[in-house]
Amino acid sequence: MQNFIFKNPTEILFGRGMIAKLAERVPTDSPVLLLYGGGSIRRNGVYDQVKAALSAHRVIEFGGIEANPVYETCLKALEQVKANQVGFILAVGGGSVIDAAKFIAAAARFEGAEPWEILRTGGAGIKAALPLGTVLTLPATGSESNGNAVISRKATQEKLALASGLVFPAFSVLDPEVTFSLPRKQVRNGIVDAFIHVMEQYMTYPAAAPLQDRFSESILQTLVEVGPLTLAEPENYDARAAFMWSATLALNTLIACGVPQDWSTHMIGHELTAFYGLDHAETLAIVLPGVWTHELERKKAKLEQYGARVWKVEAAASAIAETEKFFHSLGMPTHFGDYKISADEAAEKVRGRFAERHTLLGEHGDLTPDAVAAILRSRA
Amino acid sequence: MQNFIFKNPTEILFGRGMIAKLAERVPTDSPVLLLYGGGSIRRNGVYDQVKAALSAHRVIEFGGIEANPVYETCLKALEQVKANQVGFILAVGGGSVIDAAKFIAAAARFEGAEPWEILRTGGAGIKAALPLGTVLTLPATGSESNGNAVISRKATQEKLALASGLVFPAFSVLDPEVTFSLPRKQVRNGIVDAFIHVMEQYMTYPAAAPLQDRFSESILQTLVEVGPLTLAEPENYDARAAFMWSATLALNTLIACGVPQDWSTHMIGHELTAFYGLDHAETLAIVLPGVWTHELERKKAKLEQYGARVWKVEAAASAIAETEKFFHSLGMPTHFGDYKISADEAAEKVRGRFAERHTLLGEHGDLTPDAVAAILRSRA
Repeated sequence: MQNFIFKNPTEILFGRGMIAKLAERVPTDSPVLLLYGGGSIRRNGVYDQVKAALSAHRVIEFGGIEANPVYETCLKALEQVKANQVGFILAVGGGSVIDAAKFIAAAARFEGAEPWEILRTGGAGIKAALPLGTVLTLPATGSESNGNAVISRKATQEKLALASGLVFPAFSVLDPEVTFSLPRKQVRNGIVDAFIHVMEQYMTYPAAAPLQDRFSESILQTLVEVGPLTLAEPENYDARAAFMWSATLALNTLIACGVPQDWSTHMIGHELTAFYGLDHAETLAIVLPGVWTHELERKKAKLEQYGARVWKVEAAASAIAETEKFFHSLGMPTHFGDYKISADEAAEKVRGRFAERHTLLGEHGDLTPDAVAAILRSRA
Repeated sequence: MQNFIFKNPTEILFGRGMIAKLAERVPTDSPVLLLYGGGSIRRNGVYDQVKAALSAHRVIEFGGIEANPVYETCLKALEQVKANQVGFILAVGGGSVIDAAKFIAAAARFEGAEPWEILRTGGAGIKAALPLGTVLTLPATGSESNGNAVISRKATQEKLALASGLVFPAFSVLDPEVTFSLPRKQVRNGIVDAFIHVMEQYMTYPAAAPLQDRFSESILQTLVEVGPLTLAEPENYDARAAFMWSATLALNTLIACGVPQDWSTHMIGHELTAFYGLDHAETLAIVLPGVWTHELERKKAKLEQYGARVWKVEAAASAIAETEKFFHSLGMPTHFGDYKISADEAAEKVRGRFAERHTLLGEHGDLTPDAVAAILRSRA
């Protein structure tokens, strides 16, 4: 097992009716920024529940955070924070709104020249941040219980990440009922996103971390069991609750303790979203089987362990095949052809980007831009 | 799944050499109380490592915390805290030293008449506490990453517990190497203790919490795999590390989220320790199979699930038998006869205590003193 440092101070308030607890969790001594996205929270009743809980608070609202949150929009929210001397940010939404809240919280206390520096340093430039809390409406990213965020800058077409122990939410409310009305596609995406978050921390090589492996496999098995069920029965509380808790634990950094990681699929997927506008999870489902097949020899031991424990199959190739079948069972395509995108073109575009930045991926840090291109060509 | 609130802010510093990080984790602005037990830390090198890390700190030492920490001893440490205006407590030891540190930390900030009130209220009386950190030398209790403590009072023969979010350690250092020199019996006890901690949060009835179940089973499976190995090879780092991390996650409250619990075995075991001086884990290994057999019908679904997933057996009774075999494989007895104690006498003594206090146990809250006596008689 590798040495590790683990800390996750976020308080999770899980279950029916928990939004009411905002009343006592959100401080009343200064104005609160209520941050949200496209407005679905006004249609599904979440907005009303939140406002009712915050009836004793001074609330400044800011809506319109995008699906891939944009720096320029965050700066507008930041103006509101400064103009109103906001002391707490409450993000109500999915990973994008929460990511935006983290960046705004850090930017509000940033003393450098331009807040983009926070992202250029990957979060290392964060020395303080406003406290924030969240009401999660879309189980997927795990952002409700980690210190990570990804922000895009329109002007320069950049998409950068930050990680800091200072932007963990103080609390996150997870009420499965508020997710009942989510569109099927978003739930499908969330299941695949959570599944692949686990994989990026698990599918490498054996590292004498048997408990971490089993925890990862536990999340995978649960998603395999409840994923199709929660798609078929959106108002089945228990299935939705199990999915929601699985998505949080998939990326609250617990399963990453003491093990190697390989975020290749995410790194490649981000480029595909930038070039083609595919949903994040859609890109991951295309890329993952390609990375595994390309790296089959080096990931063989873990692929076989995964296959045996999750799918009861022996061969590494069968484990890959079962995974694709699982994605298909959720209605998730796994090939460029499904989107009428040329795999060769995608391969060249991503190869170019990674070559320009000298990007090397994988748990061994040696997956070259040419290797990435080969992976993408294989996903026609 | 039941509603739940989960928060665990303890930072875990895991691995070789991590004790050195005390230098930056322990504040230097006020004196530090270095709390320890019988002095084994002076023989195994931990004391020297800690002192080296705290070379820039003003350190007040207090040794002699007992295996079941005693209130009267804690009060003596409290005098040192007050006399020296200690601002931070560093517990170096096992669960007993850490439990004592939590109580002392709360007592130092307690404004009531007598610190015993903290325990009489189960910790509810705690409104503030000194910050504390730990260096764990004995994997077993999970106290390094929770807000619980048990303290005994000599004068009145009471043994009471406290639970408070205010006494979670700020950090805990877990270096498997410092446990290499532990006596075999303490390691055996630690494995059984951790195993049964999981069981108290798991072996009840199905509660639509599939991920929590699998996490629990993951810890059980890991203990089954590495328990005998770490006993046979005390200096096998990876085995010891896996055991150590398992023991922490067994009682950091994560697997208790959203599920019913049954702490009968612990409640009964505490009485047996009080009456006969058996080690805590020794009492648990006697009681657990008795509780399960008595409650077989009501725990059947979970016993079968556990048997199938951990032992590949079908019947609930076989799951119980496999568990006893596992304890025996660790050199842990499971009957009163192994200690030349009369089961009938033990049954009567514990029955008397529980009857006097009107104690009802079990996940349904209906296990009577008579039922407990029947359980104990069955363990002759």
